Amino acid sequence: MAEPKARRNAIATTRAQDFPEWYQLVVKGADLADTSPVRGCMIIRPWGMGIWERIQKGLDRRIQETGHENCYFPLLIPLSFFEKEAEHVEGFAKEMAVVTHHRLESRDGRLVPAGELDEPLVIRPTSETLVGEAFARWIGSYRDLPLKVNQWANVMRWEMRTRTFLRTSEFLWQEGHTAHASAEEAMEETRLMAGVYREFAEGVLGMPVVAGAKPAHERFPGAEETLCIEAMMQDGKALQAGTSHFLGQRFAKSAGIRFQTAEGGLEHAWTTSWGVSTRLIGGVVMTHGDDDGLRLPPRIAPSQIVVVPVVRGDEGSAAIDGHIESLERALRAASWDGEPVRARVDRRQMASADKKWDWVRKGAPLIVEIGARDAASGGVFWTRRDDGTKGTSTSVESFASAVPELLSSIQDVLLRQARERMEARTIVARTRDEVVDALSVEDASTRPFVRALWAPGAEGMAILDSVKASVRCLPDERRLDGGACALTGAAGAIEVILARSY
Amino acid sequence: MAEPKARRNAIATTRAQDFPEWYQLVVKGADLADTSPVRGCMIIRPWGMGIWERIQKGLDRRIQETGHENCYFPLLIPLSFFEKEAEHVEGFAKEMAVVTHHRLESRDGRLVPAGELDEPLVIRPTSETLVGEAFARWIGSYRDLPLKVNQWANVMRWEMRTRTFLRTSEFLWQEGHTAHASAEEAMEETRLMAGVYREFAEGVLGMPVVAGAKPAHERFPGAEETLCIEAMMQDGKALQAGTSHFLGQRFAKSAGIRFQTAEGGLEHAWTTSWGVSTRLIGGVVMTHGDDDGLRLPPRIAPSQIVVVPVVRGDEGSAAIDGHIESLERALRAASWDGEPVRARVDRRQMASADKKWDWVRKGAPLIVEIGARDAASGGVFWTRRDDGTKGTSTSVESFASAVPELLSSIQDVLLRQARERMEARTIVARTRDEVVDALSVEDASTRPFVRALWAPGAEGMAILDSVKASVRCLPDERRLDGGACALTGAAGAIEVILARSY
Repeated sequence: MAEPKARRNAIATTRAQDFPEWYQLVVKGADLADTSPVRGCMIIRPWGMGIWERIQKGLDRRIQETGHENCYFPLLIPLSFFEKEAEHVEGFAKEMAVVTHHRLESRDGRLVPAGELDEPLVIRPTSETLVGEAFARWIGSYRDLPLKVNQWANVMRWEMRTRTFLRTSEFLWQEGHTAHASAEEAMEETRLMAGVYREFAEGVLGMPVVAGAKPAHERFPGAEETLCIEAMMQDGKALQAGTSHFLGQRFAKSAGIRFQTAEGGLEHAWTTSWGVSTRLIGGVVMTHGDDDGLRLPPRIAPSQIVVVPVVRGDEGSAAIDGHIESLERALRAASWDGEPVRARVDRRQMASADKKWDWVRKGAPLIVEIGARDAASGGVFWTRRDDGTKGTSTSVESFASAVPELLSSIQDVLLRQARERMEARTIVARTRDEVVDALSVEDASTRPFVRALWAPGAEGMAILDSVKASVRCLPDERRLDGGACALTGAAGAIEVILARSY
Repeated sequence: MAEPKARRNAIATTRAQDFPEWYQLVVKGADLADTSPVRGCMIIRPWGMGIWERIQKGLDRRIQETGHENCYFPLLIPLSFFEKEAEHVEGFAKEMAVVTHHRLESRDGRLVPAGELDEPLVIRPTSETLVGEAFARWIGSYRDLPLKVNQWANVMRWEMRTRTFLRTSEFLWQEGHTAHASAEEAMEETRLMAGVYREFAEGVLGMPVVAGAKPAHERFPGAEETLCIEAMMQDGKALQAGTSHFLGQRFAKSAGIRFQTAEGGLEHAWTTSWGVSTRLIGGVVMTHGDDDGLRLPPRIAPSQIVVVPVVRGDEGSAAIDGHIESLERALRAASWDGEPVRARVDRRQMASADKKWDWVRKGAPLIVEIGARDAASGGVFWTRRDDGTKGTSTSVESFASAVPELLSSIQDVLLRQARERMEARTIVARTRDEVVDALSVEDASTRPFVRALWAPGAEGMAILDSVKASVRCLPDERRLDGGACALTGAAGAIEVILARSY
């Protein structure tokens, strides 16, 4: 008797075997992105781009609903703009792509840069300095405030060690920039957008987060306060998934953003900035993926339902086509979450089993297989990608009417699983040994987030460095009583989340 | 008796006085874009960005419906990629922004570029070379064809003389790239997308165009055929509004895009590329604008209806607010062109007359003014931006139900006016003198497009150069009988459109 075949996974390396390797294989196997000949820059492929477009659409609506308008600012920033804000430039100087010439010339049969610029231009790593210059021109009086804009753009940070979506030299993002007449209002805006990010991450991406504030040494270069959302990946590492910065009057002072107050005085504005990027796609992979590939929350799946025709030879292929067409008609009328359901039929010239596994790897929430038997019975055989549940609806109509509940359930299950994991793997550590032991866990499947009391200082930092961990945030939601620093015993400690991170 | 006040226009310079100056004033007065401290780069402001987002949405739907999928390719292209295609690089070498360093360092208190790259990188002026490298990796067999992708991106061409939207160093665009198994299929794709551009320009932008092919000397660098749409601006100059290129096997050969044929042979693919850009916004301004500013086709207006409260002191302001709220409710339920109607209430702290003129300059298709009298009567007083027609609906409901017809009418009127202008100002010239006279017209309000028979050659080119005109296209729709070149008498002439251009 032959051995029963072991269940093989659609991704060659499992999460338990090698989490980073698994991640790269999912990104590739799900056709999310491809490497490029340009160091550290990725090509985002249609399935990955479709996810990003869903993220854009959902987030853009929230950004507009909170009173922001979209603009577009130039890609290049004069070098001198960075000289105005010392702390800001220090944070970015090491990773800036610099344009120094404006044409190519042929010399000795080779193309070489020519036309040297009087002033070098930097490809934007972020746009505070350039937006500040425009704000200074646009703002004259308190009546012009608040000024709230956003842009969807590419940015460039010359990273030495890159990983697709998580850390790439070029990435896509949105960056919001606002100016206000008071510190309170600017701080409220900073909190508002951190809250939008949190709601979006959980409600749309199904990615639970810890919301909080960065410790001073982890703030955005030049910011007075940085709020953040931190998500736990399946290997227990934290992913900073979005940040919202209160910039005080600092950037307003360096850019000269002043306004006449209602009382006739002249005052510098208070500004904020906030952003999320294509990094979120990496977060989705590492939050929801399993050993067969990606599992996509329906709200961001480019196709929520994929129909695979299962044709054997020519057997009943006309009947299958007809059945699929009636299924398409029924699904065209279906809607979920306020939008038409996104369904596609995979008519590629490929074996149907290969097609099915392709969509498993890509994480399509519902996969429907239609063969001769289904065509004869009028039934619809479906598989949920989240938990592998299979079912047969007795007709295209009954399937179409079941779709909204199925999609809601998949969206909910993915969030719940991720939330339960984060809860279960967030531990409280009260002593130095407990902290160090917890942060030293090398098993990706049990590595935790650590809640502890912590006070700033070199000694504590050295301990964290030794276990490659960092202070992820001072969480909004506190669970510990006050007391001394768990690492050093220093007084006046605050509650923090400690973890390794991406 | 005082003189009757002359009608003043909302734009200080009229089209007749100085068309280029009028254009810049409309771009500024309608808050479409702003200059930036970066040479030749613009800041697109919310109203301009809203128009671009409407263009993106409408065109993206058409691109997807014709079977293309969105990707994103890197911003930077290794210099060596351009060495593979001599004609291509020759076309772009003079206007390339070149990245040579990847960080900044402080030296003697000044920031200077550091970390010189082994190989300089060019900011994409267009992406054929980079897409070709990916296609070569993605395509193995005829089963992988056709491969049809598109990207929405920023590109950079270092222009010496820039003009907002029309010619800027950085602009936003979409670029489609496809690969096919036969020349016929690639040529069909080239025509398909030129047709999509034509339908979009006319049906959505209300901008009639002459569709045709570029003469050989005006083709995209490296293309074997370039199809184009050319629109007539109000000053009689042509605007190249979209191009679609048949690239033959040339880029496939330089990038190594090969596929196994059904018969087992190995063949280079045939490729195409096609694009439109933020230049279209400039085209909309110069097609529809009048001496009061922009007039926007409702399909691309960020707000189709703008409601301006007309409050005098505190008189009836509560009643006005209540009336406006009921108007908002009624409009929320209204739809046109398959989408909810886009309406906004201008609640800024400004004089209502200033607000109204602001929306006139911005070209909002319908402007509604609600004062105490309207609040009392329940009526809605509206003005069409296209022709200044005013009307009063007796209730918010009757206004809301009239909106779809009003918007359709505005959309139609703008297209019809532009089409009639282009028809009336396209003349046939049969002799050298007729051509030269027509192309020498300096009056922007009568300058024509010239239809003529033309044969390639240095003599004819010199004549066109002398009147600053060029061959815009070989129009698809021919109206002349064959014969000799109108300029030189050379035989074998073809029908062309001659004009000055942007």
